[in-house]
Amino acid sequence: MALELLTLANPVFKSYAFWSGVLVLKMFVMSLLTAIQRFKTKTFANPEDLMSPKLKVKFDDPNVERVRRAHRNDLENILPFFIIGLLYTLTNPAAFLAINLFRAVAIGRIVHTLVYAVVVVPQPARALAFFVALGASIYMALQVVLVAL
Amino acid sequence: MALELLTLANPVFKSYAFWSGVLVLKMFVMSLLTAIQRFKTKTFANPEDLMSPKLKVKFDDPNVERVRRAHRNDLENILPFFIIGLLYTLTNPAAFLAINLFRAVAIGRIVHTLVYAVVVVPQPARALAFFVALGASIYMALQVVLVAL
Amino acid sequence: MALELLTLANPVFKSYAFWSGVLVLKMFVMSLLTAIQRFKTKTFANPEDLMSPKLKVKFDDPNVERVRRAHRNDLENILPFFIIGLLYTLTNPAAFLAINLFRAVAIGRIVHTLVYAVVVVPQPARALAFFVALGASIYMALQVVLVAL
Repeated sequence: MALELLTLANPVFKSYAFWSGVLVLKMFVMSLLTAIQRFKTKTFANPEDLMSPKLKVKFDDPNVERVRRAHRNDLENILPFFIIGLLYTLTNPAAFLAINLFRAVAIGRIVHTLVYAVVVVPQPARALAFFVALGASIYMALQVVLVAL
Repeated sequence: MALELLTLANPVFKSYAFWSGVLVLKMFVMSLLTAIQRFKTKTFANPEDLMSPKLKVKFDDPNVERVRRAHRNDLENILPFFIIGLLYTLTNPAAFLAINLFRAVAIGRIVHTLVYAVVVVPQPARALAFFVALGASIYMALQVVLVAL
Repeated sequence: MALELLTLANPVFKSYAFWSGVLVLKMFVMSLLTAIQRFKTKTFANPEDLMSPKLKVKFDDPNVERVRRAHRNDLENILPFFIIGLLYTLTNPAAFLAINLFRAVAIGRIVHTLVYAVVVVPQPARALAFFVALGASIYMALQVVLVAL
């Protein structure tokens, strides 16, 4: 029944909740990575953040900006997944397919972060991770649109 | 009954799910538009993305930045709509009003993208599209806050 | 019963809906604050926004950029809260704890905006507000992951 779609008794919802929780935590790690790079390179964006009167605000450190680009890419891709994964769960999809789509998004986005902001790996590593997650998200979005047409 | 609010039998939810799916797809199109502008203008933000040793990283191409501004504006407006539209659906609103509010948000945001990042149209085109979507979203947010007070 | 978790009869959901509505409105206020700073400092990012032929596009006004940094920080922290707060609600937590976690996130983020973008208050004001909201969100995310494991 429809009512039980959003309970842990539904393996699709359970998987969605698990991977969404993991991805929320992964996104918060980006703030930590940014902070680490800011302190390491003494790159602060606000006067009130400068810990020494000798420092000046700085916006162009490549290590800080790399993490920030990876974080912004998360905003652009993981946040839409949260809603489309939930709506897809509410369409009551086949569990095997749905669970593997959620895994594809989550693992794709974790790999994306690793090869972008932790250890820089030559392309097409980042592109592949990006498209695996995006492809799975697009599939879910199309299913939701078609079912709700 | 409350339980059936998140099923396709509820025309409000059906409309919310449809337009949310459309807007998720629309947001993903922004990544594609950014990529098109990056390749057209050879503007890449990461050394590992440069396809020729002659290229350098570049951050200030006006065509790339325009699409990125439109995309960021989506993050600021469409992503909050996803949650407030869902919560508004759970307040069991009148179907006619709710469905037209969702349409206002979706069409406002699609027009916003078209006049901002596809064909630049003089103001107030973008401002109008922006405020139609924002006004509908604010109305839903106020309803949710008042009902849950 | 699980089905009633997303109704206003559930005090946890009621609190989640209320604070989510407040935070959506708070996020929209950031667009207004940005617009105010843009007009005050005549800083516009698009040629079609310039209201006088004497003006040029500008991207580096410190007042505009400060509000934009605060807004981006909202995207990074409030938007993930929306989904993790909803999933946490669906785990049927103790009402007292859950309601105070939502309050911590909401008040932490409101204070964050006030000391960052309205009246600049020396550190650690912003850091404290940031970590109160982040800590509560991480707790909810860990609960969701553990329950859905």
